[in-house]
Amino acid sequence: MTLQIALVSDQIAMDYLRPAFSARFPQAKLHRIDTEVQELDALAEIDAVVCWSPPVGLLARMPRLRLIQSVGAGTDHITRDTTLPDVPIHRIVDSEMAAGMNAYVAWAVVHGQRHMGGYIESQRRAAWEESPVVPPGRHRVGIAGLGVLGQSAARALAAIGYRVRGWSRSPKQGLPEGVEAYHGDAARADFLAGCDTLVCLLPLTDDTHRILNAELFAQLPRGARLVNAGRGAQLVQDDLLAALESGQIASAVLDAFVEEPLPQAHPFWHHPRITVTPHIATRTGPEAIARQTEDNLKRLSV
Amino acid sequence: MTLQIALVSDQIAMDYLRPAFSARFPQAKLHRIDTEVQELDALAEIDAVVCWSPPVGLLARMPRLRLIQSVGAGTDHITRDTTLPDVPIHRIVDSEMAAGMNAYVAWAVVHGQRHMGGYIESQRRAAWEESPVVPPGRHRVGIAGLGVLGQSAARALAAIGYRVRGWSRSPKQGLPEGVEAYHGDAARADFLAGCDTLVCLLPLTDDTHRILNAELFAQLPRGARLVNAGRGAQLVQDDLLAALESGQIASAVLDAFVEEPLPQAHPFWHHPRITVTPHIATRTGPEAIARQTEDNLKRLSV
Ligand SMILES: NC(=O)c1ccc[n+]([C@@H]2O[C@H](COP(=O)([O-])OP(=O)(O)OC[C@H]3O[C@@H](n4cnc5c(N)ncnc54)[C@H](OP(=O)(O)O)[C@@H]3O)[C@@H](O)[C@H]2O)c1
Ligand SMILES: NC(=O)c1ccc[n+]([C@@H]2O[C@H](COP(=O)([O-])OP(=O)(O)OC[C@H]3O[C@@H](n4cnc5c(N)ncnc54)[C@H](OP(=O)(O)O)[C@@H]3O)[C@@H](O)[C@H]2O)c1
Repeated sequence: MTLQIALVSDQIAMDYLRPAFSARFPQAKLHRIDTEVQELDALAEIDAVVCWSPPVGLLARMPRLRLIQSVGAGTDHITRDTTLPDVPIHRIVDSEMAAGMNAYVAWAVVHGQRHMGGYIESQRRAAWEESPVVPPGRHRVGIAGLGVLGQSAARALAAIGYRVRGWSRSPKQGLPEGVEAYHGDAARADFLAGCDTLVCLLPLTDDTHRILNAELFAQLPRGARLVNAGRGAQLVQDDLLAALESGQIASAVLDAFVEEPLPQAHPFWHHPRITVTPHIATRTGPEAIARQTEDNLKRLSV
Repeated sequence: MTLQIALVSDQIAMDYLRPAFSARFPQAKLHRIDTEVQELDALAEIDAVVCWSPPVGLLARMPRLRLIQSVGAGTDHITRDTTLPDVPIHRIVDSEMAAGMNAYVAWAVVHGQRHMGGYIESQRRAAWEESPVVPPGRHRVGIAGLGVLGQSAARALAAIGYRVRGWSRSPKQGLPEGVEAYHGDAARADFLAGCDTLVCLLPLTDDTHRILNAELFAQLPRGARLVNAGRGAQLVQDDLLAALESGQIASAVLDAFVEEPLPQAHPFWHHPRITVTPHIATRTGPEAIARQTEDNLKRLSV
């Protein structure tokens, strides 16, 4: 029987995966279900879905489904669907993804700490305006989430020269030298009190949903900077706007949003101290996704 | 006799040094000679100058001068004056300076490679526009100049995940793992052929004057990106404009200019693919400058 694979998302166009999947699965039939194309007639034939935020309830309508493959590191965008069939869910494991996140986080931290956005503004006015040059060693960066991505970002920021601390659920051994480790809810306030910049690299769970809120912002040093490269639903948007207004937060660089694409009328777009990027912090290449999907399918058939 | 120190520059206002020098030399008399204030009557009394780009000929008019202290890592802004008296010239040695440069270079490299300037433009139009997410491991960064700053930047970029190569005059041992070393004029073309981004961290010398020119740009891969954190006189400005026009260079981030502040009418200000920063890549704090000036003066009096 022909292998049938569906590329599924209710947020992003999945066509970027097609060439890599055609090359790796020349015999397979590829379906596409996303915001633009909806091949819904073949649901009964689908063997595997490759997905980002699949529509809730859709996977339950695939009786032949054997594999759910996330195109990213997280699976929360899949498991929010409580009607999922009992089928293995695989995430992508990809060293290039961590490096991509390192680059994004390095840029975002320096952008805030060194006033780079201000220089870009000054350039529009042909104005030579210096901001204070504070060395990285006098700036404390805290990373919430010390998983694959958080640990890698901690190492990169420490190599630049930042004073780095991190926060996880369980205690962590073997962190890069100089990185101060905090864990659990009991240490949360101590961790936050020393974050001149807070970088969120937490997965979305019940505990981290709306974790970036007014109460947390109040525990940061006044004028702290925020980078959210985790998930949009971790941030309470109105609390951020209020904290920027009061000066408790000096600036924010945001890559993830509750609704993506971020709606045209959203206040984040035109806020002078918010930098919006379109969920590009890092990403796994189509070839790696196709290859890992093939590996995961092979493992099933043994 | 009262120690007399002059803070001297024909490019920048030197008042930012005054509090730190008053604190460390409470008995001394401080003079200031820069673009705004010119205390020229006391030249005959000056014991030490603390300077950035002192006016040519001025130091020769200080018969009592015993120390020339640069406020930066380089001394080319001093030695361009061929009439200098025979007095020791000291540069600042400062580990925080390397970290500051790491942060700048990391930001500038990611800014070009990951199209961050494009996202900032899109944000103005509230437009959710993704650019290709190419992982750092597929982007080669070449650092021209493997001195204190170049080696430190190489280490930071490698920790992010970039493929890093460097170029120096003499062979280098003990570079960070994974950094490919090139040296000398014979290896220059090979080095340049593998620079998707070229970062200039060379000192200004006869050999490096106007080194960033059309001939060099032509040796880079097409669409390469340029970061100049060295000196303005290393860049042939019209050649850069032509290379951006032809597409040979995709974008440039520039921190140093022949004339600083960059004149209002300069074409760099409004070029869509040039990012101008006002010579802020890194800097030594006033306290460190005052402390090292004191150390260097003490050494003289032994
Ligand atoms: N913007 C983008 O382009 C992009 C791309 C990829 C991923 N991401 C985001 O990055 C997140 C992290 O990815 P990853 O691969 O590093 O995940 P991971 O390996 O699962 O690591 C998650 C980390 O968060 C910690 N954590 C979880 N819940 C916590 C809590 N309640 N309190 C304290 N710490 C908690 C975990 O602690 P323990 O180690 O103790 O369990 C772990 O250290 C993803 O879930 C996703 O949201 C964003
Ligand atoms: N924009 C800013 O804010 C800022 C701040 C500070 C410094 N800077 C710039 O950064 C420069 C470098 O500082 P540094 O402290 O790292 O200097 P450094 O320690 O003197 O190192 C200079 C490096 O350049 C190499 N080099 C010199 N001439 C060369 C040539 N003709 N061909 C190939 N390589 C050559 C040297 O090679 P060898 O090792 O073989 O001698 C050495 O590796 C300064 O001179 C200054 O221009 C800029």
